[in-house]
Amino acid sequence: MEVIIPFSIKSPKTRLKPALSANERKRFAKSMLSDVLTALAETDASPTILATGPVDCDAPVVIDQRDLDTAITDQLADSSFPVAIVMADLPLVTPTALERLFEPDADIVLAPGRGGGTNAIVVRHPEFRVDYHGISIRDHRTIAKNVDAEVGEIDSLRLSTDIDEPQDFAEVLLHSNGAANEWLTSAGFELAADGRVTVERQ
Amino acid sequence: MEVIIPFSIKSPKTRLKPALSANERKRFAKSMLSDVLTALAETDASPTILATGPVDCDAPVVIDQRDLDTAITDQLADSSFPVAIVMADLPLVTPTALERLFEPDADIVLAPGRGGGTNAIVVRHPEFRVDYHGISIRDHRTIAKNVDAEVGEIDSLRLSTDIDEPQDFAEVLLHSNGAANEWLTSAGFELAADGRVTVERQ
Repeated sequence: MEVIIPFSIKSPKTRLKPALSANERKRFAKSMLSDVLTALAETDASPTILATGPVDCDAPVVIDQRDLDTAITDQLADSSFPVAIVMADLPLVTPTALERLFEPDADIVLAPGRGGGTNAIVVRHPEFRVDYHGISIRDHRTIAKNVDAEVGEIDSLRLSTDIDEPQDFAEVLLHSNGAANEWLTSAGFELAADGRVTVERQ
Repeated sequence: MEVIIPFSIKSPKTRLKPALSANERKRFAKSMLSDVLTALAETDASPTILATGPVDCDAPVVIDQRDLDTAITDQLADSSFPVAIVMADLPLVTPTALERLFEPDADIVLAPGRGGGTNAIVVRHPEFRVDYHGISIRDHRTIAKNVDAEVGEIDSLRLSTDIDEPQDFAEVLLHSNGAANEWLTSAGFELAADGRVTVERQ
């Protein structure tokens, strides 16, 4: 399956500012992308990075500096179905979770992200359009319904866990042992428990 | 499968204090329990509520006022395997998600909660003990390893989503249409989007 992975190189992961410097955020974002590509490599997917500028990584890169929705819509128009869009900030993702995403034969398959996002989509319907602004999972359900597309949803913690805020680091440390975990650990982050689980930087 | 559902009646869901009064927290906790029981009713499970006091609900109730770990350990000792422990604050849970939990034949099956919790466990090993304090998913993995139990984990957003903080309400409004959704909606909560998804009370 063709897989498009959007990746912003300019100022990625701004909500991690309380924990990481601009350079650290770039390096951490790259480590998460690397985890996604590693998991995809064990499936039959053909990934393409859809980036806002050059990225040094082990996959073809298409550069498009327009807004995300426009860039993806253009990629969808050039693709043969099925085609998937998978976010780059999913370091918990595994080949098994991706295979669950690729498996259903529905016109549209959605993997919700925590907080109303849409972390992965498989598209088999020519009229479907993406809209990543606002409460995107709700909007994607509506868009699919409006074009009479049959919708499947994937119930996956791993696909739902995008790393947006420092408290999300705990999920990486608990449920992944890839590049993002390694980067966070080498940057001094470790789990801490004071009633609820958080992370501390040493 | 026998299913134990721990339920605190005294001061449930204290981390919802910023959004709900004490009475509201009790009613909301009951609505979430009701959603869990409704989903279990469509499986072959036999639920028992393990409560700190009387609960008016559609299932047998065992009252035990000791701490959670002690009360569950006692229940496990009286149970025949397999037996499951499922948290009461999982309003996104569906019969399908529960069947995925019950399916693997591993000695111990864990469903991680967001933030290091353990939202459901299936036990088929007599030496396993629970420990819900601290980073419980990590501790449960260790306890299982120390008794040479084979461990399976369930990758489920629905099982991972316990409702602890007001921002979790968005998940209920987006991914469930049961009693907890109805309660939140009648209490005036609705989705709001300002960059990230939150809820507002009208």
